[in-house]
Amino acid sequence: MVDRRRSWWGWGWEDQTPDARQTAAIAATIASRFDVPELAIREPIALRALDLPDPRLVPPTALASMCSTDRYDRAGHTHGKSYRDIVRNFRGELAFAPDVVAKPRDEADVIALLEWCSAVRAAAIPYGGGSSVAGGVEADIGDGYSGAVSIDLTNLDRVLEIDRVSRAARIQGGALGPVLEQQLRPEGLTLRHFPQSFEFSTLGGWLATRSGGHYASVYTHIDDLTESMRVVTPSGISESRRLPGSGAGPSPDRMFLGSEGTLGIITEAWMRLQDRPVHRSSAGVWFPSFGQGVEAVRVISQSALFPTNCRLLDPGEASSSAGATGGAAVLVLGFESAHHPVDHWLASALEICAVHGGTLPEPARSSSIAQTTTSKPSEASAGAVETWRNAFLRAPYGRDALVAMSVIAETFETACTWDRFDELHAGVTEAVTNAMQEICGGGTITCRFTHIYPDGPAPYFSVIAPSRWGSELSQWAEIKAAASDALITHGGTITHHHSVGRDHRPWYDQQRPDVFASGLQSLKATLDPAAVLNPGVLFEPSRGSRT
Amino acid sequence: MVDRRRSWWGWGWEDQTPDARQTAAIAATIASRFDVPELAIREPIALRALDLPDPRLVPPTALASMCSTDRYDRAGHTHGKSYRDIVRNFRGELAFAPDVVAKPRDEADVIALLEWCSAVRAAAIPYGGGSSVAGGVEADIGDGYSGAVSIDLTNLDRVLEIDRVSRAARIQGGALGPVLEQQLRPEGLTLRHFPQSFEFSTLGGWLATRSGGHYASVYTHIDDLTESMRVVTPSGISESRRLPGSGAGPSPDRMFLGSEGTLGIITEAWMRLQDRPVHRSSAGVWFPSFGQGVEAVRVISQSALFPTNCRLLDPGEASSSAGATGGAAVLVLGFESAHHPVDHWLASALEICAVHGGTLPEPARSSSIAQTTTSKPSEASAGAVETWRNAFLRAPYGRDALVAMSVIAETFETACTWDRFDELHAGVTEAVTNAMQEICGGGTITCRFTHIYPDGPAPYFSVIAPSRWGSELSQWAEIKAAASDALITHGGTITHHHSVGRDHRPWYDQQRPDVFASGLQSLKATLDPAAVLNPGVLFEPSRGSRT
Repeated sequence: MVDRRRSWWGWGWEDQTPDARQTAAIAATIASRFDVPELAIREPIALRALDLPDPRLVPPTALASMCSTDRYDRAGHTHGKSYRDIVRNFRGELAFAPDVVAKPRDEADVIALLEWCSAVRAAAIPYGGGSSVAGGVEADIGDGYSGAVSIDLTNLDRVLEIDRVSRAARIQGGALGPVLEQQLRPEGLTLRHFPQSFEFSTLGGWLATRSGGHYASVYTHIDDLTESMRVVTPSGISESRRLPGSGAGPSPDRMFLGSEGTLGIITEAWMRLQDRPVHRSSAGVWFPSFGQGVEAVRVISQSALFPTNCRLLDPGEASSSAGATGGAAVLVLGFESAHHPVDHWLASALEICAVHGGTLPEPARSSSIAQTTTSKPSEASAGAVETWRNAFLRAPYGRDALVAMSVIAETFETACTWDRFDELHAGVTEAVTNAMQEICGGGTITCRFTHIYPDGPAPYFSVIAPSRWGSELSQWAEIKAAASDALITHGGTITHHHSVGRDHRPWYDQQRPDVFASGLQSLKATLDPAAVLNPGVLFEPSRGSRT
Repeated sequence: MVDRRRSWWGWGWEDQTPDARQTAAIAATIASRFDVPELAIREPIALRALDLPDPRLVPPTALASMCSTDRYDRAGHTHGKSYRDIVRNFRGELAFAPDVVAKPRDEADVIALLEWCSAVRAAAIPYGGGSSVAGGVEADIGDGYSGAVSIDLTNLDRVLEIDRVSRAARIQGGALGPVLEQQLRPEGLTLRHFPQSFEFSTLGGWLATRSGGHYASVYTHIDDLTESMRVVTPSGISESRRLPGSGAGPSPDRMFLGSEGTLGIITEAWMRLQDRPVHRSSAGVWFPSFGQGVEAVRVISQSALFPTNCRLLDPGEASSSAGATGGAAVLVLGFESAHHPVDHWLASALEICAVHGGTLPEPARSSSIAQTTTSKPSEASAGAVETWRNAFLRAPYGRDALVAMSVIAETFETACTWDRFDELHAGVTEAVTNAMQEICGGGTITCRFTHIYPDGPAPYFSVIAPSRWGSELSQWAEIKAAASDALITHGGTITHHHSVGRDHRPWYDQQRPDVFASGLQSLKATLDPAAVLNPGVLFEPSRGSRT
């Protein structure tokens, strides 16, 4: 761990960035898929060659020890990890580098930083793991600020308290996924929130962006796992009561969930935990067509069987990641429990699949491990889900290689009611296909379901298109706009779990009710009177002269 | 139906108020329970004898046809249906009678009424079924207003649209429970939200107060059944997008859920529906002690079996309503599904019960009826749950009789984490027992769980104490304060599903974070600039001179 450090420009760990051989292999695959000549592979700009603007801010003496203007820190905190971010990093376009990167060690430091930012009207940009794919952490803040401070919360990384009987823990907002899981493990407990960014995102980031996790149904969002929150705002600390449920006025927590760093900084939360699962049953179900798979999943979603995993892959994804052939769609269906064997649940869901033409090329799998509450759960507790998870978590590294060969790789995710899904799927697919054809001369779009609800699915679209060196971002922007327009036109949300950030603002502004937006703006003005928190996210940044 | 009308002073239908013989029987039971002499039974004041203050408002001509100053209308809309309300009605203490009762016929009428109220600074008090037990609908509004208009929404009672494939319907806010269920039934669908007030409360009221319904787990609150909402505020209409799930900023719906008529009037909502259940399994489990029952329920709550019914009765309630003897606690445990037989689920939950000393005096019951989607479901679909429901819905009528004999009858409900439950239960029981002993010379307090969560239960306390004619309300207030103080001291919420209203304000103000409250106040000022919506609920009423 000592020598390992995060890539300042790409995904994850520096030592995991695809090497020349891996990149060449990906390039060959892409060239063959799109029938294009050999792809030129370029190198990212060197850190030392970056032309960073001079810092505009000097921290007060009392805060100096937690503040850095180091080149690596500023470059690494300039962007999130969207396709656009990585392209800009790769090319050295870091116009919005924060002036200062601050790493508070405790809540008092967070308060002091917000006081300083408010006093000098500097933008305060909360930064967890920095994995935003929606422009949520960059200092594109308009002209009303004296500078920008990226507030990196990863030193607030402890599990402070565990309530075993209620299965809950008080956890600091800056704890990265593996860091908090490691502290829960000795109690046999787990938050079991595994977004794809799990290794490089924090609890506070998940809460601020309404992250989507491990569970395909019921507890889809981090919202549902939240018992109470403690939030530092420029107007004071808001701490809600630990409650399993309440009807006392509008929920305070639901106001901060999804606030994306615009209302305050989440320093702690009591989170609902799970016992580590003991029983698992799963199956890969093939359907002759995507439509039949969709119909089976709809019925499953309305059956109250509540699968843990219910990932329907369209034929494109089924072919590339599940080895399916002949235009089959594949449903990855799984149940898990710490309490009871779940083969009965799986069997009931498989009956639904069979009615809709689903077949099992391989038998369903069930396993149970000895329950363990000791500090060292047996390796068997990992199993197939962990294997899948590791591959899932590894995937974003591949995007660094695609950027190096000027291939556009983007994902769009949404949710819609079942009655609109066919139209939305067709509309998004057509709009994006046409855009790619026109702009890039081709490209592919595929779809899977990440989460399901009784009234609709959460479809997730993946796009790959060949681009040209130097034109990636303008081409990407056109495809992104075509996709986003189609999502909104056909009844979807601009984001089911990736957040709004700065990139989704134009469509979010169409989606949210204006009356609600004006009310929320008033609430923000009270909590953040100097309007320093994450300007440009959710709300228009403040205008006006710098102090 | 033509001749039937609501009791202006007591619960429900006038013709269902307990008659002299029924009241005498109740009096005999109570006298025996508390070992007191025969209880004097009084009559409520006659409607014609009420001394109502003269109306202070005259509606503009354009609104006159939907406005009433009729004695029955004003008296019936003066209070909700709390114990305190019924005592005040019984005695003719109607100081806060609304000046006008308005019955809008459509949304345009609602808008016009709010415009009028804002223009003349009259309090606008949204009124659904009028079943509030927390002072949510009365015109105790302080001195800043020219008068008060009770806005009765029950003419907005239609199911406007049904989306069968997504199992959702667009329903007007003023639809009473049976009225909306009747319109869903031909499609084989049901909202399945059955608060005890089901017959006399509306969808809009449920949403505004975060009502608790039929499901003991998962979908406990109406919040979870809400797909989108349409709300008329003085600053315009807020309508959210129909979405099964979203991560786009803080949820607009969660802002209005629990707003208790202070931010706007809910005119429509898209609600998530259920197929009418086909399969049911249930059992009554006896535990040697309440504590063993609590432990069994805790494990069930963390098992992800998700029972539909999981009502643990303490020995007092088990004795009076389930015929249990010997200090046994009783768990009424039930599962239901439209999709699959649920005996497997019940069996798994019963295994947990057995581990904790649970026994079955009678065998568990399972039933399945033929699925029906015709307009006339078979009578068999009613079954035991409906029978129980009818008894449950009938219970509040008994309180009218208790008021007539000067017996205090009150309920307190809350939720807390499992680690605090023993302490909360003991603390509330002791505080209320001591208060009853001191104030009334005795009384009983019992407890049951209405809803369960993985991290804690929702306990519901029922109190009965003998009082004295004329002293009921001061005695009630002391007991209520003792109970509420204990709930807050021991980590509970002041309300899990009864709402805050005016009666719970002092404890709500302790419970909600101050920073959140000030933010919400700003939001309200933007949505309701004249501060006319339900003054005194959630927020301090505005002060200042009348217009």
